[in-house]
Amino acid sequence: MGKLFVIKIGGNIIDDEAKLDRFLKAFSLINEKKILVHGGGKLATDFAEKLGIKQKVLDGRRITDAETLKVVTMVYAGYINKNIVARLQSYHCNALGLCGADGDAILAHKRNHPVIDYGFAGDIDTVNTKLLALLLQQDITPVIAPITHNQKGQLLNTNADTIAQELARGLSDDYEVSLVYSFERKGVLLDVHDEDSVIRQLNKVDYYQLKSKDRIFAGMLPKLDNAFIALGSGVKKVIIGNAEEIGELIRGKQGTTIMND
Amino acid sequence: MGKLFVIKIGGNIIDDEAKLDRFLKAFSLINEKKILVHGGGKLATDFAEKLGIKQKVLDGRRITDAETLKVVTMVYAGYINKNIVARLQSYHCNALGLCGADGDAILAHKRNHPVIDYGFAGDIDTVNTKLLALLLQQDITPVIAPITHNQKGQLLNTNADTIAQELARGLSDDYEVSLVYSFERKGVLLDVHDEDSVIRQLNKVDYYQLKSKDRIFAGMLPKLDNAFIALGSGVKKVIIGNAEEIGELIRGKQGTTIMND
Repeated sequence: MGKLFVIKIGGNIIDDEAKLDRFLKAFSLINEKKILVHGGGKLATDFAEKLGIKQKVLDGRRITDAETLKVVTMVYAGYINKNIVARLQSYHCNALGLCGADGDAILAHKRNHPVIDYGFAGDIDTVNTKLLALLLQQDITPVIAPITHNQKGQLLNTNADTIAQELARGLSDDYEVSLVYSFERKGVLLDVHDEDSVIRQLNKVDYYQLKSKDRIFAGMLPKLDNAFIALGSGVKKVIIGNAEEIGELIRGKQGTTIMND
Repeated sequence: MGKLFVIKIGGNIIDDEAKLDRFLKAFSLINEKKILVHGGGKLATDFAEKLGIKQKVLDGRRITDAETLKVVTMVYAGYINKNIVARLQSYHCNALGLCGADGDAILAHKRNHPVIDYGFAGDIDTVNTKLLALLLQQDITPVIAPITHNQKGQLLNTNADTIAQELARGLSDDYEVSLVYSFERKGVLLDVHDEDSVIRQLNKVDYYQLKSKDRIFAGMLPKLDNAFIALGSGVKKVIIGNAEEIGELIRGKQGTTIMND
């Protein structure tokens, strides 16, 4: 099976033009097949503010009312996605931007929560791996914005980490997939105040030991729980680390590499 | 050769949600292969105003400064494009939204004018027919936003009529292409005040005769001049008419059908 990297870049990198550019340049040099999933960054919040749309956030998740959905569709699937694609094209990486509605790439449903109405937030049902495999076969690099749809004409705001995970899982039948979460930190840290305390390798047993001793930074727990879910369903490895070291990251020379054992 | 319809919808239809929906429903029922090219409508101007960005227009063309480019990228390639795609998906048309940067679909250069600086306005160099043919072969319907790129990382605002024309010309080697300009009028009118004065068929000789007698509405002349350029380079026919009658339009039962002779 051919290798595939599903790489998520976090918001903080997107907000910094110079960092984003260095990341995209290094990303374009990855020879293996690759998919880029990007988050939204602060830009959507900035635009919503300028337009006088108040933003509500509950448990770290944006409440997506109709006006906010408009803004995130414009900013994520329009501004950010197309600028990333144009930049990658300039580095000779044949990128093609998609949201989940395009080619029915990612089908989702409106989040159903007993207490909180998250508005137009989408939870993923299925990923169209046939379309993505078709593009990859043509040496096209899909660049995915975190907007999905419900096949009934409704766009939905969807967590980019989850999209990356579902793409990685879905494509594991056809590829040897490494799922990479790249952001502004160097990896999973033993001491959140010490960037040099990166855990270089992590397996399930070690993770639960560290977790039980409260040695893992709380903000990292959902990413890691998701990582092990991904590993449990066919993903070969999960790598977490600094987006600016993406070249070293995917070779296991930087960051945290997570495997089942 | 298989048939292909390259269909442009004009701005006024996009501004009217009910009309747009009727158009998209009818569009989805076209059995032949098809590409949709959409303009921008008033929405970009509205957003620019809300954001305090002043719009300059010269000779009917928007002067695209850096801030305006941001807005049109968000509105055209984000909001409008993704909402059209999601709506078409709900009508079981497997649409996939692209701007010219995606998959290097449309390469352009910054307009070079001796007197006027149009800003980030793009004039088309080449169309990537290989990518479009690949999508069409998979029964995917490309939906094109009027944003192109220059392969150097720069997005460019580009006239949607011209994009439709260049796509139609470029794909004429592989398909029997009909180029359809659909908008709010019933077709090319002999009397601009009488919607029932549609010229049903127009060839080159008739056109130049009517033109010389000033019988053609000035606003229609660029569309018609472009139509004959398209016919001169392989496009089979050009059809102009009401977007809400798209089903009848493509069968030649409504609107104006333009052929070389």
